[in-house]
Amino acid sequence: MTKTYTDSTPPSGGRGASLDVCLTPALIPLYNVEDYIVVVIDIFRATSSISYGIENGAEAIIPVSEVEECAAYRENGLNYLLAAERNGEVVTGFDFGNSPFSYTKEKVAGKTVVLTTTNGTHVLHLSRKAKKIVIGSFLNLTALCNWLKTQQENILLVCAGWKNNFNLEDTLFAGAVIEQLKDGNYKLDDPAIAANDMYQLGKHDIGQYLSKTSHGARMKKLGIEQDIAFCLQVDLTTAIPVLDGDRLVKLI
Amino acid sequence: MTKTYTDSTPPSGGRGASLDVCLTPALIPLYNVEDYIVVVIDIFRATSSISYGIENGAEAIIPVSEVEECAAYRENGLNYLLAAERNGEVVTGFDFGNSPFSYTKEKVAGKTVVLTTTNGTHVLHLSRKAKKIVIGSFLNLTALCNWLKTQQENILLVCAGWKNNFNLEDTLFAGAVIEQLKDGNYKLDDPAIAANDMYQLGKHDIGQYLSKTSHGARMKKLGIEQDIAFCLQVDLTTAIPVLDGDRLVKLI
Repeated sequence: MTKTYTDSTPPSGGRGASLDVCLTPALIPLYNVEDYIVVVIDIFRATSSISYGIENGAEAIIPVSEVEECAAYRENGLNYLLAAERNGEVVTGFDFGNSPFSYTKEKVAGKTVVLTTTNGTHVLHLSRKAKKIVIGSFLNLTALCNWLKTQQENILLVCAGWKNNFNLEDTLFAGAVIEQLKDGNYKLDDPAIAANDMYQLGKHDIGQYLSKTSHGARMKKLGIEQDIAFCLQVDLTTAIPVLDGDRLVKLI
Repeated sequence: MTKTYTDSTPPSGGRGASLDVCLTPALIPLYNVEDYIVVVIDIFRATSSISYGIENGAEAIIPVSEVEECAAYRENGLNYLLAAERNGEVVTGFDFGNSPFSYTKEKVAGKTVVLTTTNGTHVLHLSRKAKKIVIGSFLNLTALCNWLKTQQENILLVCAGWKNNFNLEDTLFAGAVIEQLKDGNYKLDDPAIAANDMYQLGKHDIGQYLSKTSHGARMKKLGIEQDIAFCLQVDLTTAIPVLDGDRLVKLI
């Protein structure tokens, strides 16, 4: 796994940079992440909630893997909000779960949120050597793309997926990013071509397109359809969360 | 990596079986392969050449990883044909390379071919606990699907991909298999849904669709465009190669 898949030679003059899609966390080791700006994508629901929380004035969001790790922040005082969920229910003793509806201005402005997200934390850890790590969701799609366009760097869109495997919603979002960037003379790898093709099929009704996915079915079972609808809203926000140490803060 | 992604409970009465797509060899550990018939897919060119060779009467095809391993079969006598290629050229001292044009009746009938294919051998090794391992290519598409329909088993379509990552041509072929099977009341996982969607986009001109891929460009550079065109012919053959020990032989 030491060989890299793509030729990620730095772009000259902002043209010819690589725009690649890593379809699951299991494939991150195939990329030289230090050559890329990494965009982490976990549409249902971690990166959507993070985008919304940072937009709404959260001072920082700290992603952690385990409920216990999250609970340990309790001693840091009341300025910390603790988010932990198991099977769609807020864990007893925690402030809220992973629903984006918990990340309103009233709740999070000026606070630091500690968010339990096993998958998201895993992806951030594997990407830690990237030039920069930012958070993408449909909520901040155009703001994110406008910022990426100014960067003249290779871009790796990392889909958090489901249990280390491919999922449709994260890949479709990667395709939406590519749609906005593809006139910029980037080199697309095969997963990027496929993601953008899928976006062409789904873009007219993303909710309908995703209703056939495994994850959509799982989330319906959990009774969180309104979370799904919320996470599929395009351009509700403009903040771009960026990783600074172990904290996600507002980049712009 | 011990947890499995899908619920691969055996089907009852041939209905409700899983039809899943493993997008790269790196993801095989996410599946309980022992619950599946595995179809190995390496369109450019290993599984196309294997399908054609078995159709043309090769007694067996033995996939090996290394040129040296292949050469060791020389002492087994003249009934063995040795196939090894590096950078598009037949390795000196070998009978032929990986082009399907080498696998004609005149050359392979009654012979055992030892084929050097690092990627293919790796996939076979990772899938060795499957209920059965068969070989798929556009050449034997409908014959393969007709056989799969009679099996009443979970099916895992494994794309060999490119350097452990996703590629379009293998995924598109997986989508073509799903197209023929999807009325059979199988449960599709997300990669299967995506593969079939891609097939909808590409089916009217597969060659044109694939011309944008990284692999297509690489193969053009190697001057083997006619191999590509050959490998994209649909239903040229009816033989289904199956793994028996370490040899691929004719199943039907």
